[in-house]
Amino acid sequence: MRYLELCSIEEAKEAISKYLSKYKDVEEVDLFNAVGRVLAEDIISDIDVPPFDRSQMDGYAVKAEDTYTADEDNPITLKVVGSVKAGDVKDIEINHGECIEIATGAGIPKGANAVVMVEYTEKLGDYVKIYKAVAPHENIQYCGTDIMSGELILRKGTKLTPRDIGAIAAIGKNKVKVYKKLNIGIISTGNEIISPGEKLEPYKIYDINAYTLASSILEKGWNFKFYGIVRDDKEELKKAIENALKENDIVLLSGGTSAGVGDLTESAIKELGGEVLIHGIKIKPGKPTIVGVVNDKLVVGLPGYPTSCLIVFDVLFNDEKKTLKAFFPMRHISAKGRTEYLPVSLVKSKNGYSAYSITKGSGAITSLSNADGYVVIEENREILENEDVEVHLLGDIKVGLNIIGSHCIGVDVILKEGNIFAKTINVGSLGGIMAIKRGEADIAGIHLLDNSGEYNIPFIKKYKVRDAVLVRGYIREQGFMFKRDNIDGIEDIIKNIKKYKFINRNKGSGTRILFDKFLKEHGINKDEIDGYGIEAKTHSAVAVSIVMGKADIGMGIRTVAEQYGLRFIPIAEEHYDFLIRKEKLDDEDVKKFIETLKKVKLPFKKPENCGEIIFEC
Amino acid sequence: MRYLELCSIEEAKEAISKYLSKYKDVEEVDLFNAVGRVLAEDIISDIDVPPFDRSQMDGYAVKAEDTYTADEDNPITLKVVGSVKAGDVKDIEINHGECIEIATGAGIPKGANAVVMVEYTEKLGDYVKIYKAVAPHENIQYCGTDIMSGELILRKGTKLTPRDIGAIAAIGKNKVKVYKKLNIGIISTGNEIISPGEKLEPYKIYDINAYTLASSILEKGWNFKFYGIVRDDKEELKKAIENALKENDIVLLSGGTSAGVGDLTESAIKELGGEVLIHGIKIKPGKPTIVGVVNDKLVVGLPGYPTSCLIVFDVLFNDEKKTLKAFFPMRHISAKGRTEYLPVSLVKSKNGYSAYSITKGSGAITSLSNADGYVVIEENREILENEDVEVHLLGDIKVGLNIIGSHCIGVDVILKEGNIFAKTINVGSLGGIMAIKRGEADIAGIHLLDNSGEYNIPFIKKYKVRDAVLVRGYIREQGFMFKRDNIDGIEDIIKNIKKYKFINRNKGSGTRILFDKFLKEHGINKDEIDGYGIEAKTHSAVAVSIVMGKADIGMGIRTVAEQYGLRFIPIAEEHYDFLIRKEKLDDEDVKKFIETLKKVKLPFKKPENCGEIIFEC
Repeated sequence: MRYLELCSIEEAKEAISKYLSKYKDVEEVDLFNAVGRVLAEDIISDIDVPPFDRSQMDGYAVKAEDTYTADEDNPITLKVVGSVKAGDVKDIEINHGECIEIATGAGIPKGANAVVMVEYTEKLGDYVKIYKAVAPHENIQYCGTDIMSGELILRKGTKLTPRDIGAIAAIGKNKVKVYKKLNIGIISTGNEIISPGEKLEPYKIYDINAYTLASSILEKGWNFKFYGIVRDDKEELKKAIENALKENDIVLLSGGTSAGVGDLTESAIKELGGEVLIHGIKIKPGKPTIVGVVNDKLVVGLPGYPTSCLIVFDVLFNDEKKTLKAFFPMRHISAKGRTEYLPVSLVKSKNGYSAYSITKGSGAITSLSNADGYVVIEENREILENEDVEVHLLGDIKVGLNIIGSHCIGVDVILKEGNIFAKTINVGSLGGIMAIKRGEADIAGIHLLDNSGEYNIPFIKKYKVRDAVLVRGYIREQGFMFKRDNIDGIEDIIKNIKKYKFINRNKGSGTRILFDKFLKEHGINKDEIDGYGIEAKTHSAVAVSIVMGKADIGMGIRTVAEQYGLRFIPIAEEHYDFLIRKEKLDDEDVKKFIETLKKVKLPFKKPENCGEIIFEC
Repeated sequence: MRYLELCSIEEAKEAISKYLSKYKDVEEVDLFNAVGRVLAEDIISDIDVPPFDRSQMDGYAVKAEDTYTADEDNPITLKVVGSVKAGDVKDIEINHGECIEIATGAGIPKGANAVVMVEYTEKLGDYVKIYKAVAPHENIQYCGTDIMSGELILRKGTKLTPRDIGAIAAIGKNKVKVYKKLNIGIISTGNEIISPGEKLEPYKIYDINAYTLASSILEKGWNFKFYGIVRDDKEELKKAIENALKENDIVLLSGGTSAGVGDLTESAIKELGGEVLIHGIKIKPGKPTIVGVVNDKLVVGLPGYPTSCLIVFDVLFNDEKKTLKAFFPMRHISAKGRTEYLPVSLVKSKNGYSAYSITKGSGAITSLSNADGYVVIEENREILENEDVEVHLLGDIKVGLNIIGSHCIGVDVILKEGNIFAKTINVGSLGGIMAIKRGEADIAGIHLLDNSGEYNIPFIKKYKVRDAVLVRGYIREQGFMFKRDNIDGIEDIIKNIKKYKFINRNKGSGTRILFDKFLKEHGINKDEIDGYGIEAKTHSAVAVSIVMGKADIGMGIRTVAEQYGLRFIPIAEEHYDFLIRKEKLDDEDVKKFIETLKKVKLPFKKPENCGEIIFEC
């Protein structure tokens, strides 16, 4: 194969599956523990199911012809010549005018060709009155009608569900041949990686991929063993790969995000006497993937970013296609010349599912938690926009309330206190309004200040939202946060503004707008502000900058300032309200959400009409 | 509660869930083994992720302002004052005109506010040429932008996916509190039940429910222990329940199908000092369900029929609603006054999924294997017909070729030899034609004899099938099967027809039509035939009747006669052909199907044009 040029995903999958099919050792397992395992044999029945003609009801086995004239007013009377229960082995036969009492599951006696349900009979000593005619074969399950001897029940390669297990039990097998579980060794790499449970050190991040890979491997029904975190050192890496190869069928490497890691892995594979089949795949994310073979076993280097790592693992190792059709209500520009695997978050909407592309990027772990699956965008596609897509699921979809809009920690508190299961997707206030319009969001948290000074309602009107209500939420305090003790108050800030090192927020954020308004009102030129050009993307990032001494002061909400132990001087208040689709007002979870909003103690001010509908459209 | 009247499914679920919530013991598990477990705590981050401003690319950390004039033709030059790798702890800062070489994942040095990707640079000694302008914040992932300290990551009650596990690892936790696995004891009941692996005895059937329940319990992440099969004997049953209660949180009983079993279970629960909460639920299937409590632990008696048993288990114990929208292309009459849980088989069609109700009834194990889920029909609904339905999934859906139509063992051989994964749904030839028309079937096996004597094509025309082809299949021989040695040939049968005890086939079957035609042609009155009224539903059931001595002779296909070691005299030949949707002719599996049909050795005669298209529409 080639490794100077990027290879296609098909080539990579083929290389992998060639080796996966090599590792197909077979073992026999007890049927009780076979669920989820993959059949290594065809299951062919050597019996008929049911193995005899069987009554489907409790009642009387009769000759149907004898009952033809029976109805409620004119019962016929038959002589009861015996009785047969489920499991009974009796050689009995009936003639005309006779019947046999029979239980569900019992064998049909000779001469009988139908069963009258007990509900339509009345027993009188040795005789029984029949109040309903039965047709021949009524209430009889015939021998072999379920499964015929010789019938193929399940094919080799089937991943066994409880229902499959039932079918195997039905034909009397209590053991099955399945493929042995694959053993996969996992090695994390990277100088910056430390293990969860250890103390966080400066400029280090916790290992994520070892855990997501191990969990995915367990979910697939394979075994894993973790060989720890290896520094960016070739000898260390070689040793770890060697150890892992001894005990496993496949070794997975992941963690390092740097471009150099790939070269390290490539050298390690070669120096261990292996061959690098693939170095670089023409997909996004996942370009840095390496596929090598050492001692006839696969050594695969996966991308370091968590979402990329998991998607590439899924694409390469997961052959069970679980897909779902969804509407993509956004616009996404795809990289040309590479197949893109776009992670999406699914929400249940009025008309099925909608798939939102995840905005935080593949480096973000929250992208990973929200990724229900991914959409494959072929390399010749440039734009994905308002269309139906096929979502490849990364596992179970979690359903619940859809809360789409601006993120606020208050929402988390409400969901927690109310014990409400919800999926929160943070797309900003305007994105929330749009999601309500499309029927995808049940609730949208919004805080949009109009030029008129009014919050939220003008935007609902402007964007022509219909069939929704605005529920008053809470008031967030915006202001300056800082840790220096020599700032006395707002006057001091204005007077000495040039002395302080600022950290600003990103353009388009409400906080940025407030800061600009503040400067304008006090006649301060923004060019005089040290750090005006340094932007942070969240309240929390501003707070952290100040705590770490990178900046002296910045604007943000009081809740975050307090969380980080910073001093806070309020500047303005903003309404964070909830736009809710009308048809969802009767939903139990939505009702609970509003009730909890009213009752719960929040780290924000609540207006008197909190939880009330303040606008309807 | 009440147990003379049938209770509603809601009451039953409430009774169960009240006890399920009692059993919520908590344990701490290692994060590596937490996938699939249910969180017993909220997971709140006490760190920011990332915990520092982090480079998303390999390149140079710069002051964005310094690069504004840079482009391909006019690079700017910056002095490289240091380098920082992922994990490096360095206190370095840049001023205007300077930059620092930076690796993906490394901390952004003080003074820098953007990263230029290495692709747009050229290093020259201590200096680097920058060929592209960057905006402030470009290629930087800021501290806390992914997860904020104090943010709720996952809520109590979440069933952990690999992605959730990743999020927990990201915030540095390597242990989580989860609910302990429930321990469930399983007891099978019924005189007619024997264990798989044992020799099949007359009038016995193999235990299925113990296996499907155990597998479902394992799939849910709980533990099970099987306490064997108990006869219909109260004392035995009491002893088994007592044993199971000692070691488990819940005891499940199942197996017996007879009406008497319920009373036995009820008495056993009471005599063990327990209380029967529910005896009978107003649902179909599942009426005989019993819910009792002994020593504050649930004892639940499930229906005996496999599909009923599994559906009732799912309804009562499975709180994770996995549903899927599908089209119901049939007509189903539902029982009034009871909520019906109709098992359905899903097939992927042109426009999403279609849900077929399973026709064999809840006693059939093949109903179970084909049941991808069930549709809930509310008690006031009488008819379900050509409409969208919500399917409650019983697990993973298996996709593959959809082969819908008349069943033939030849199809199984082709699928096996060709190693083709397919779902076969047996709805008869005409049902197959309809499924092709609706785009649900990819292939339909059909064998329909027209009055003209021509097979299949007249019916395709009559039902106005479009965009499909008929591929010539094989020839099945119909004839008489028997085991007696004193039948010499067809002349003997005709001459001595009154002497033999016949078994007939069901009305509407092709074989029945043939038999009637045979009688007519030879001037035989059907009333003279002993057993004309005894109908079997399959070829195999006819054969079994003869093998078991219930009948002497019957009509069926040669393959089945041979399978059962019966003698066979041919009467007629019929064409079993394949109707295939045109757009599927390019499908790999369909191509393989046709190729295999041509090549494979089948237990049927193949005409010369086998595998060729003989009609197009």
